[in-house]
Amino acid sequence: MKNLLVAQSGGPTAAINATLSGVLDAAKKSSSISKIYGARNGIQGVLRDTLVELTNLVTQENLELLRRTPAAALGSCRYMVKDWKEDETDYQKIVEVFRKYNIGYFIYIGGNDSMDTVRKLSEYCTEKEIDDIVVVGAPKTIDNDLALTDHCPGFGSAAKYIATIMRELEREVEVYTPNNVLIVEMMGRHAGWLTASAALAQQKSKKVPYLIYLEERSFSMEKFISDVKNALKQYHAVLVAVSEGLHDANGKFICESDDDLHQDVFGHKQLSGTGKVLECAVKEQIGCKVRSIEVNLLQRCAAHQMSATDNEESWNLGAYAVKIALQKKSGKMSALRRVNQQPYQVEYEEVDVKDVANVEKKVPDAWINEEGNGVTQEMIAYLNPLIQGEMECCYEDGLPNYFIIE
Amino acid sequence: MKNLLVAQSGGPTAAINATLSGVLDAAKKSSSISKIYGARNGIQGVLRDTLVELTNLVTQENLELLRRTPAAALGSCRYMVKDWKEDETDYQKIVEVFRKYNIGYFIYIGGNDSMDTVRKLSEYCTEKEIDDIVVVGAPKTIDNDLALTDHCPGFGSAAKYIATIMRELEREVEVYTPNNVLIVEMMGRHAGWLTASAALAQQKSKKVPYLIYLEERSFSMEKFISDVKNALKQYHAVLVAVSEGLHDANGKFICESDDDLHQDVFGHKQLSGTGKVLECAVKEQIGCKVRSIEVNLLQRCAAHQMSATDNEESWNLGAYAVKIALQKKSGKMSALRRVNQQPYQVEYEEVDVKDVANVEKKVPDAWINEEGNGVTQEMIAYLNPLIQGEMECCYEDGLPNYFIIE
Repeated sequence: MKNLLVAQSGGPTAAINATLSGVLDAAKKSSSISKIYGARNGIQGVLRDTLVELTNLVTQENLELLRRTPAAALGSCRYMVKDWKEDETDYQKIVEVFRKYNIGYFIYIGGNDSMDTVRKLSEYCTEKEIDDIVVVGAPKTIDNDLALTDHCPGFGSAAKYIATIMRELEREVEVYTPNNVLIVEMMGRHAGWLTASAALAQQKSKKVPYLIYLEERSFSMEKFISDVKNALKQYHAVLVAVSEGLHDANGKFICESDDDLHQDVFGHKQLSGTGKVLECAVKEQIGCKVRSIEVNLLQRCAAHQMSATDNEESWNLGAYAVKIALQKKSGKMSALRRVNQQPYQVEYEEVDVKDVANVEKKVPDAWINEEGNGVTQEMIAYLNPLIQGEMECCYEDGLPNYFIIE
Repeated sequence: MKNLLVAQSGGPTAAINATLSGVLDAAKKSSSISKIYGARNGIQGVLRDTLVELTNLVTQENLELLRRTPAAALGSCRYMVKDWKEDETDYQKIVEVFRKYNIGYFIYIGGNDSMDTVRKLSEYCTEKEIDDIVVVGAPKTIDNDLALTDHCPGFGSAAKYIATIMRELEREVEVYTPNNVLIVEMMGRHAGWLTASAALAQQKSKKVPYLIYLEERSFSMEKFISDVKNALKQYHAVLVAVSEGLHDANGKFICESDDDLHQDVFGHKQLSGTGKVLECAVKEQIGCKVRSIEVNLLQRCAAHQMSATDNEESWNLGAYAVKIALQKKSGKMSALRRVNQQPYQVEYEEVDVKDVANVEKKVPDAWINEEGNGVTQEMIAYLNPLIQGEMECCYEDGLPNYFIIE
């Protein structure tokens, strides 16, 4: 009987350990799997032979804590394996380690780059006629930019966190008169899904106007200043949500727009964010009270404000990846298909990783309003089911408790 | 029978509306108070005569929602009344508005500056022999720097939020190898209490070392770099908590240390934070992966992660302020006295606002470790009871619901 190996890769999310929990639970329950191993720090852990046996850790109690633990409990990496046609070294080492631990099933949880690793590794095995190693992907990314899945595990929790803090910041920005502008910068270099989730808070706003700018549209500073001025005619406070990857019509990032002056003391180009650049522009051109906030890493590890829907789906996608692996379908990824909108209903399916790897799913243009400063009802309808339900943290002495793989 | 007026001032907190709720509840229950009014935007709302009657809003249901609503539901201001010996204009207007609405009790919820307003206004009334207007303060500030109260309402929730995200960021910083430094900047220009609360997460850390720098001690960049290097010998990840107000031995703020180069495109001095300056220093002098996060406004409005202890005490301090007012004790503030450490127990008392106004309570030097890069067990023992217990949010469609005073 073969063993199963699982690893995590790419940027952390609040729910990637829920997917790991789903993998572990399904593997433990399968009569076709003997031992369960985890590789530390993704595929690098395989290459370095830093595997850890997890079989005895898989208890109901541990999994309940693990699924509530943010970031990657097994560690992560950003390592890209080379094309095997050019250099087989990594692949030979990987197969050698798999043989050593009698690994028959490898589940790789990750985003775009990780799915590319799944693709290459499964292709390599096919080419070399290695038919007793099955390689399957399970998706994750807060960026929500993976193709062929309705949405990505981790995104719903990040969206819920962002919408929650936007609602709180809306209370905050309202307290002072006169005019008061608050700019909130979200992650996402290549897709505006996270920024768009501010609209979930916007739809509940009774007074405060929101302006939302996604990187799918070119950004015009002139239009932005005019939008803010108009919003301030409506109310004394304005909340602005922006993507870090905002760029002008020439594709130049807004945060790079003043190269010469944004340098730090060592002459490095200052990593001043998009929000900070807009803050300076509002100060200069409107002259009112203005502040910018970079939500930064908090949006991808806020397990204390997880979406129960996201957590459950993330778990199920892990379990489904094991199911695919047991059917010996190498080179597949578990995915979500939305089969009904109201009531919201999803089904789990398998998709080819080759169609997922290196593709980025952008926000559809039709979901951005004409003015380019907000989103449409289609976007709200898409986002709303993903943030439903709350996960209770396991509190100990006033703070959430987490599961650590020693 | 006289009416009661309540107003809120200074920076928002997650719990200032819990104090407002306590005031409203006690006022409604008192047979000595007829109508209840709120002034919009603090004392400015009195001066502008923008009062709103709240009597009929005071229901159990509304108060439960209000006590979970962050920031100041009545709005806030940063207005300082002049010394009445120099200019009586404001005072005459205030008393005129009080007369118009038959106000006999005025409760002002706020920090240092607001307590100064309470002091001046109560002194003015004494001087002018106005004996039917009682002015009482109720404390609030996330900075926890008010004198004569064991701790300040709002601080416990901010501390719980900070410790929670530090625990999450600890998971986050751990996932990548090799060396990885994460710097988190907390609010507090003049006292390091908020930054110190990172130690609540530190004491639970199994692996990741923490370095905590409070502004009560002079900051040395050389020592900091050496501390980080030492920590990286211990483990591959380090978490650093710093106060925005860190300064060198000459009192110069760290965030001002590179004036010439940190300018934005308009020639403004860049508001680059302390964390960003330290990030650049680590990059330059150690050369490892490093990132900085400014927690910013999120720490003072994170009602979704409130401390139940803080919320209850905040409510009680509001109710106690009404009790003081009904006893006609003008110029007092409600305060907390810790009467027992284990089990934690507090009592409510009145203190003279004149001893609170314009005084800042710093972190005692004895609670900072010898090296100046962490806190002692006394600090942990002080902080720990303040973050106990969780407030359940009132969720509606996946997001916390709030009470808005229309």
